[in-house]
Amino acid sequence: MNSITTITAISTAPGVGGIAVIRVSGPDAVKHSNAIFKPKKKLATLLKQEPNTVSFGNVVNTKGELIDEVLVTVFRAPHSFTGEDVVEISCHGSVFVQQKILELLIKQGSELAKPGEFTQRAFLNGKMDLSQAEAVADLIASTSAASHRMAMNQMRGGFSGELMKLRGQLLNFVSLVELELDFNEEDVQFADRSQLQLLATAIEELIVKLSDSFRVGNALKNGIPVALVGETNVGKSTLLNVLLNEDKAIVSDIHGTTRDAIEDLVNIKGITFRFIDTAGIRDTKDKIENLGIERTYQKIEQAAIVLWIVDCTQLSEHSEWLTERIAQRSEGKKIILVFNKVDKITPAEFKVLGQLFQQFKGERINISAKKRLNTDGLQKALVAAAQLPDIHPGDVVISNVRHYEALQRALAAIQRVNEGLKNGISGDFLSQDIRECMHFLGEITGQISNDEILGNIFGKFCIGK
Amino acid sequence: MNSITTITAISTAPGVGGIAVIRVSGPDAVKHSNAIFKPKKKLATLLKQEPNTVSFGNVVNTKGELIDEVLVTVFRAPHSFTGEDVVEISCHGSVFVQQKILELLIKQGSELAKPGEFTQRAFLNGKMDLSQAEAVADLIASTSAASHRMAMNQMRGGFSGELMKLRGQLLNFVSLVELELDFNEEDVQFADRSQLQLLATAIEELIVKLSDSFRVGNALKNGIPVALVGETNVGKSTLLNVLLNEDKAIVSDIHGTTRDAIEDLVNIKGITFRFIDTAGIRDTKDKIENLGIERTYQKIEQAAIVLWIVDCTQLSEHSEWLTERIAQRSEGKKIILVFNKVDKITPAEFKVLGQLFQQFKGERINISAKKRLNTDGLQKALVAAAQLPDIHPGDVVISNVRHYEALQRALAAIQRVNEGLKNGISGDFLSQDIRECMHFLGEITGQISNDEILGNIFGKFCIGK
Repeated sequence: MNSITTITAISTAPGVGGIAVIRVSGPDAVKHSNAIFKPKKKLATLLKQEPNTVSFGNVVNTKGELIDEVLVTVFRAPHSFTGEDVVEISCHGSVFVQQKILELLIKQGSELAKPGEFTQRAFLNGKMDLSQAEAVADLIASTSAASHRMAMNQMRGGFSGELMKLRGQLLNFVSLVELELDFNEEDVQFADRSQLQLLATAIEELIVKLSDSFRVGNALKNGIPVALVGETNVGKSTLLNVLLNEDKAIVSDIHGTTRDAIEDLVNIKGITFRFIDTAGIRDTKDKIENLGIERTYQKIEQAAIVLWIVDCTQLSEHSEWLTERIAQRSEGKKIILVFNKVDKITPAEFKVLGQLFQQFKGERINISAKKRLNTDGLQKALVAAAQLPDIHPGDVVISNVRHYEALQRALAAIQRVNEGLKNGISGDFLSQDIRECMHFLGEITGQISNDEILGNIFGKFCIGK
Repeated sequence: MNSITTITAISTAPGVGGIAVIRVSGPDAVKHSNAIFKPKKKLATLLKQEPNTVSFGNVVNTKGELIDEVLVTVFRAPHSFTGEDVVEISCHGSVFVQQKILELLIKQGSELAKPGEFTQRAFLNGKMDLSQAEAVADLIASTSAASHRMAMNQMRGGFSGELMKLRGQLLNFVSLVELELDFNEEDVQFADRSQLQLLATAIEELIVKLSDSFRVGNALKNGIPVALVGETNVGKSTLLNVLLNEDKAIVSDIHGTTRDAIEDLVNIKGITFRFIDTAGIRDTKDKIENLGIERTYQKIEQAAIVLWIVDCTQLSEHSEWLTERIAQRSEGKKIILVFNKVDKITPAEFKVLGQLFQQFKGERINISAKKRLNTDGLQKALVAAAQLPDIHPGDVVISNVRHYEALQRALAAIQRVNEGLKNGISGDFLSQDIRECMHFLGEITGQISNDEILGNIFGKFCIGK
């Protein structure tokens, strides 16, 4: 046991519901719960309740007044989520009742759990490693099939398994090198340098592969960035609203997550897109306006997909100029050319339009945002453009910035090892770089951790988890 | 069993939480849950799981892919909330996971539960009567100690007990009278008319007592109506904002209840107040303005407490006239005279002020709403003015409009019985009125009910309860 307090919190979503669950964990979880609970069954007591069973009874206050009729489940250490004794009280979902029960438990001596404290205890008690604990938060925040599957794979330990394997290989490696150091004066080589080189290269490749998966993982978790660009007044905002509204219910459900601009996230066919509205682009000598346009270009660079919107009724002489500019800035990105307000022009005019943009070779879509014509066609094009690989059960994909950064550092260290091996540097330098690589890998799984790291990680959890 | 379908719903509050609970009830609850659940324990199956025990395991989709790690509790009919087989699946509180599990259960053949359908089944299966079922909804919506206690008393059956007793007495009564009717031609009297008169009077008094409790019950449940009145620009809105802000967190928690103007409810020391802002009153000949003022008077009439707000710095020559008007319209109500902006006048001016209002005999409070001076004094005065009797465990207080209306009808019937007994009307008329009284009492407990009544009642529940 790493902790001696008993903690409690409301673990279900805040607000009114049919039922709510209050969780208690720690050495006195059963004692504190027993003090406020009267089972319906005569002579029954939580203290003697079989683990993993449920009792029906009343929560009463210190005056013996009835607060609620509840179901109480008892789990005994180490067979619980936290690895400690855990009691779950399932009460009616009134905010008042939830608060009252919490107050009664606190009166008994339980402490209000800090955000993520249950999961933190599970980690500290060895029920899961740090990346698995982080996956719990990701799982709770997941809003799409892909982000759900990534979190689930991580929670099941796929990623941890890969890291453990790497660390194990590095440990063998460094042990041999450090053994040499002990026999320093004798100038022996226990570690076959060409074998080591092979191993270090394999490890570097694996770390690169994991790091690379972050592009996909991050897009799946935080949404694929889509920049809406075009000249001023071509209908960017209208289109954005249409795209946002069509799935508003899904989007509004994700409160509690840490995203800043939640209103711009849309889930289309299970893929989350993050729409970035930009200032209109036009050829101008106005310095301030040019600053705004420069920012638009920067946003294009952050995007994976560019929706280039053209107002069919207001073709500018800059179309050609713009095509070139946007294409220049969008290298390596998917561009979808969106002809808006197509309902307002004649077939003849549409033909002229097509010629104007004939140099553009990418996908093009005709819509009317205002009249919602073919906006589902646009959605399909977006889904196609997203082109993210399917995440399969068991796939290891990095979606956590902290993991990504640690991997980048581990990568730098293993690259120094490889470089060193090529240049035949001495064992003590090699050993130092290998240990550093192991350190950063260990930070991910929590084998290396400190209160600050833990505080940062669990502080972002919701209360009650 | 009154139903043969198996129903399911998310029973915890909507949105993201640490955990969420999905409930399944009906003959196939265990079968459907078992089809999507793989216990961690080898060879275990929900089908053979002991009632009231919990299993840890995985929810998997039809392809065998992991959806979540969950805890599953099995309850067996009739020992469950609904009286049917019930399974509770406690999963991670991701909106995505909750929806997925629900979808999987529906694929198995469960139907999405209608609002209140679990409680409706509990009623139909005889686990509780109708007024107890309604108390479940009140309990969930309760936001204060008093509304909580009322709901709890009702849920425990205190009210139902009183009604059962009344119905029992009436049944004895009507049986004797109807026995006489069988012997009609012989002109016998089994039912001693003076005994009957005593009984009917006692019943009438009891119904009156129950009806009367509605004033208190309604105030406790829906908030004590407080009208803010005064001349224009005396700071009514500022004061209202101060009163609302101080407990904003509590107020914002009560979404999901059916109140229309939720922003005007404030919980002060466990009592809910419903603040009613009104148009400023002044002496005017403008017809339209007078209409507005008339509406203000109507609002005063709905209120139990009147906060009469005076701007100390802007005393009008109408103060005396107003005192009279407000006093006239506030008969039987508590008036609190609130001197606002007291920080802006000198002690000498304050003395003059006191003289101006010397004819006002009620409570007076000096505040500055803007600077939040003595607003807690005002809160205390409000709590004192509320003067609601304490609700004790076991007290029967009516807070439901449906019950109140049924009681009013039952009252009219029993009054006709009493009247009839005095006038010596014949047994068949007596019997008809007694049966009518019994009918309305039975509507409250659900002994008399129909689909429309049930639909109205349970349709207002939240989903998952």
